[in-house]
Amino acid sequence: MLGPERPLLLSRQDRERIAYHEGGHAILGLVVPGADPVHRVTIVPRGQALGVTYQRPDADRYNFPESYLRARIVGMLGGRAAEELVYGTKTTGAESDIEQATQLARDMVTRWGMSDRLGMVQLAPRENPYLASRSGLDGFGGSRPFSEDTARVIDAEVLRIITESHAEARRLLETHRAALDTLADALLARETLDEQEILTVTGLSRIPAEDNGRAVGLPT
Amino acid sequence: MLGPERPLLLSRQDRERIAYHEGGHAILGLVVPGADPVHRVTIVPRGQALGVTYQRPDADRYNFPESYLRARIVGMLGGRAAEELVYGTKTTGAESDIEQATQLARDMVTRWGMSDRLGMVQLAPRENPYLASRSGLDGFGGSRPFSEDTARVIDAEVLRIITESHAEARRLLETHRAALDTLADALLARETLDEQEILTVTGLSRIPAEDNGRAVGLPT
Amino acid sequence: MLGPERPLLLSRQDRERIAYHEGGHAILGLVVPGADPVHRVTIVPRGQALGVTYQRPDADRYNFPESYLRARIVGMLGGRAAEELVYGTKTTGAESDIEQATQLARDMVTRWGMSDRLGMVQLAPRENPYLASRSGLDGFGGSRPFSEDTARVIDAEVLRIITESHAEARRLLETHRAALDTLADALLARETLDEQEILTVTGLSRIPAEDNGRAVGLPT
Amino acid sequence: MLGPERPLLLSRQDRERIAYHEGGHAILGLVVPGADPVHRVTIVPRGQALGVTYQRPDADRYNFPESYLRARIVGMLGGRAAEELVYGTKTTGAESDIEQATQLARDMVTRWGMSDRLGMVQLAPRENPYLASRSGLDGFGGSRPFSEDTARVIDAEVLRIITESHAEARRLLETHRAALDTLADALLARETLDEQEILTVTGLSRIPAEDNGRAVGLPT
Amino acid sequence: MLGPERPLLLSRQDRERIAYHEGGHAILGLVVPGADPVHRVTIVPRGQALGVTYQRPDADRYNFPESYLRARIVGMLGGRAAEELVYGTKTTGAESDIEQATQLARDMVTRWGMSDRLGMVQLAPRENPYLASRSGLDGFGGSRPFSEDTARVIDAEVLRIITESHAEARRLLETHRAALDTLADALLARETLDEQEILTVTGLSRIPAEDNGRAVGLPT
Amino acid sequence: MLGPERPLLLSRQDRERIAYHEGGHAILGLVVPGADPVHRVTIVPRGQALGVTYQRPDADRYNFPESYLRARIVGMLGGRAAEELVYGTKTTGAESDIEQATQLARDMVTRWGMSDRLGMVQLAPRENPYLASRSGLDGFGGSRPFSEDTARVIDAEVLRIITESHAEARRLLETHRAALDTLADALLARETLDEQEILTVTGLSRIPAEDNGRAVGLPT
Repeated sequence: MLGPERPLLLSRQDRERIAYHEGGHAILGLVVPGADPVHRVTIVPRGQALGVTYQRPDADRYNFPESYLRARIVGMLGGRAAEELVYGTKTTGAESDIEQATQLARDMVTRWGMSDRLGMVQLAPRENPYLASRSGLDGFGGSRPFSEDTARVIDAEVLRIITESHAEARRLLETHRAALDTLADALLARETLDEQEILTVTGLSRIPAEDNGRAVGLPT
Repeated sequence: MLGPERPLLLSRQDRERIAYHEGGHAILGLVVPGADPVHRVTIVPRGQALGVTYQRPDADRYNFPESYLRARIVGMLGGRAAEELVYGTKTTGAESDIEQATQLARDMVTRWGMSDRLGMVQLAPRENPYLASRSGLDGFGGSRPFSEDTARVIDAEVLRIITESHAEARRLLETHRAALDTLADALLARETLDEQEILTVTGLSRIPAEDNGRAVGLPT
Repeated sequence: MLGPERPLLLSRQDRERIAYHEGGHAILGLVVPGADPVHRVTIVPRGQALGVTYQRPDADRYNFPESYLRARIVGMLGGRAAEELVYGTKTTGAESDIEQATQLARDMVTRWGMSDRLGMVQLAPRENPYLASRSGLDGFGGSRPFSEDTARVIDAEVLRIITESHAEARRLLETHRAALDTLADALLARETLDEQEILTVTGLSRIPAEDNGRAVGLPT
Repeated sequence: MLGPERPLLLSRQDRERIAYHEGGHAILGLVVPGADPVHRVTIVPRGQALGVTYQRPDADRYNFPESYLRARIVGMLGGRAAEELVYGTKTTGAESDIEQATQLARDMVTRWGMSDRLGMVQLAPRENPYLASRSGLDGFGGSRPFSEDTARVIDAEVLRIITESHAEARRLLETHRAALDTLADALLARETLDEQEILTVTGLSRIPAEDNGRAVGLPT
Repeated sequence: MLGPERPLLLSRQDRERIAYHEGGHAILGLVVPGADPVHRVTIVPRGQALGVTYQRPDADRYNFPESYLRARIVGMLGGRAAEELVYGTKTTGAESDIEQATQLARDMVTRWGMSDRLGMVQLAPRENPYLASRSGLDGFGGSRPFSEDTARVIDAEVLRIITESHAEARRLLETHRAALDTLADALLARETLDEQEILTVTGLSRIPAEDNGRAVGLPT
Repeated sequence: MLGPERPLLLSRQDRERIAYHEGGHAILGLVVPGADPVHRVTIVPRGQALGVTYQRPDADRYNFPESYLRARIVGMLGGRAAEELVYGTKTTGAESDIEQATQLARDMVTRWGMSDRLGMVQLAPRENPYLASRSGLDGFGGSRPFSEDTARVIDAEVLRIITESHAEARRLLETHRAALDTLADALLARETLDEQEILTVTGLSRIPAEDNGRAVGLPT
């Protein structure tokens, strides 16, 4: 999917930035409750990617809780957050992360009813395979079937999720700055680390999977 | 329609959540006046569905009262409502329910004149087979033939119906929480229950079909 | 046009509602000044229709006065109005009526200059066969060639015509409630009535065609 | 262009209305300064038209003054104006007149710079054969290349021209009501009148063509 | 480009108006600083044009200053301005001028950064041959990639340029009214005049090309 | 890419303007921190370009910091800025610069999360090759998937970046006006200068590449 390894002549500076970017993803994969375990992280370029952090759930998942989706968005924004923390500057390297995080946040509020302001209303053009071809959201000639006001709330909700997740990524990486530095140094030295090496280098341990059991108190 | 049974390795946690989700649909099929009888409920995955609640009217229906449509929407939102009640969290599992409920609520206000604010005005791009090809709502080049103000009222009416139905689903499931727990436990144990088993397990009885006879008092 | 007769197993309840729905159309065909005479009314399903009221002018018409168009809209909304009057509830059965009434009301204000607020301005994408292919209303790339403000007035005018006609349908059916009940009962008993049977059963007589002669007083 | 004569069975009432409608066009062709001379008027249906008023300039014209375009719009709205004057009611018979008048009024303000509020700005999607294929008004993907505010002013200017012309048509027909009645009566009796017969019946004379010579005073 | 000469039977009135229209273009070609020299002017119809004013720079140009573009717009609007000055009325004859002036004014503000309010921002859908196929302004599905507010400013800036240029054309033609009258009379008599004849008849001389040398004072 | 050299007959005036335009690009390539080194500058026309400034990074780059993108935009706007500074007037010569600068500024705020007001939200229709075909930003029928409010902020952010960069280009060229004049003169004399000649003529030296090392103080 990512294509073959691609030998690129990268400057020490570029390699360090990539190491911090991937390090940011990886650290958050370790410390965000509910995140998928990190199996490998590398700064060897592959296809269009200058580095990759591999995460995979311990078992197949078919139903995703809101907290898990939030954990994924926080992790996606961790590359940029690490760069900001370390260099105080932004680069284009987060383009793909931004694209994936936006899509996930949009799906949360337009397909999965995870915004209280928008309610359990479908506001995205997905076709349900269980329904006949005509969709209640087809609109006219394929145009947007909701009002400008609703579009404004969707934008505000997506921005809120992204901004909160970005802040959370920043906060967690500040807390774990030492682990981030160590991991980036190890990546510069060894290029690729597997799960055990990451845990050893950072001194972090796998957090237990989230408890999604029946709530004892009052549900919100 | 749903495809063949699909053996999936689901965690105990996932299976319990699915049992509560389907249990929510099923309980509301029993307690919402006017809902179609529940014939079977299962947590055996089929096609894309992780569980299915089968409902079917006792006789073919050709004309649907507003109260029946509301009952269907309440039932559709019952899966998410049960999850919220039991776990206090949301998952992606309600995507298909949200899609169907939105379509039904939209049709109510844009095709069937069931919003007093919008009146008996067609605001959806359906073609009536009794009319020639030109439709009064074709608009220009397929674009939306009504104003932004009207779009805003449509959105508000759809959101109102969905929000009221969601609240009603929550209220009814809180009232019948014990039946919901029992049904979820039975689903975890037996995977599939038919109508008689559901009634036995929950202690509920089939509610009589709605009386749609001539109103004696003043019509609204 | 309506397809062949279609034997459906309908409940007594459904048949009664259809009888009142068609009865509403038929009574208004008799009592609304300017309406086309009612030649037959039936609750035998045909194609997609559960019942049909057949109306036809006494002679071919080529030029339609505003009052006649209003009479048609009032009649179209009579099925729903009768259901509301008798049952106090709405059903999906008026979908086709809503579609036709909306189209007619839209044409009145966007093609035929029958709204004083919108004036004698064409606001619909019809092509006049007497004009060359380029239309002054083609807009750009087929998009709507008028402003949001104009769209708002069109919506308001269509809603006004529909709402006034709906109220008129309700008012007339309340006045003729006894005739409506008798006609519905007759339809339940005999399924189909011709013009003479309708007049006999309801005790109503054909109203004379509207006098469209030259106005004596001052024109408005 | 209009198709062959079409024998229709029209009621006396319909024929009278058509006679007044065409009479309205014809009288305005005689009394509006700058209008093209009326060569024939008929109430024999042809193609889709129930009657026709034939007007033709005395010589070919290649450049049209604003006053001439206004005269044409006033004449186009004369059919409806006559019906309103005589019957106090509107019919669908003016659809084609409305379409042509709207197109002409739109062209005046969007192609010919005849609105002071909009100025000498092209606001319509016409391609000038003297220009290469790219037009400054192509917009993006064929969408409307101007703002909602501009669309609002276009609508207001078109409505102003139509409303002023309609009022002028009414005023002139009230002034010449006797000639209108006589012409309608003659049309009912003879069906078709040529120019000389129209002048004889109405007692009107051809007005001289507008003087478009150099202005002596100050231009506006 | 203009097609062959076309013999048309034009009234004296029409010929005079055309002579003034082309005279307006030609006079402005002589008196607007920076305008391209006028090589010929004619009222012999060609293709769709009823008259033509030929202007051509003395040398090929590859880079156009804002003042030159303004000069062209002023000249384009000179035909209508002359008609207004002489007759006090507008005709359709300026359609092509309006189209070209609008395109040029739009390009100034949307492609060439010549509006201080809009800045050096591209707001038109042109593809730069030096860029790959993806354009930053492609928008979604070809739709307009900027906001309604920006569209409003574009419209205001285009209208401002056109209105200022129209006023300038009027002012200059009033100043040179005698030359305009003489040129129109000469065109009516001789139909076509070359550059020398125009200068002789009007008594005007070629203005020197604009000095675009380095500014001595402070740039604005 | 630029096509072959193209011999054009350019006036002394045009050649001087081009020399200043390219000189503006080149000087900024020397004095803007982080800009790519200037390898050659020429006023020999090639393809559609009347002159070219060649810039190229010292090593391949795969990740672009915001400061580098800003440096590129400042450089792109340097041609127009130089013309304004020297002549006090604008020309069409900056069209391609405007197009590229707009695209880059738009990408910064809609793809790369470089606007604090818009956040790390994707607001452009790019497809990420790592994602399946369905994009969270596909919208309905390809229409813009965000609100008018968001479009307004995008426009404001793009305009801000462009305006700030334009002002920076002006400021730097004013500071280095003497070098600009010398370079323009040299270009008029020699037509093409390589890097060493540019440095010699202007007396400027290559600025060191930006230090993007780890920030010592607090990141912003």
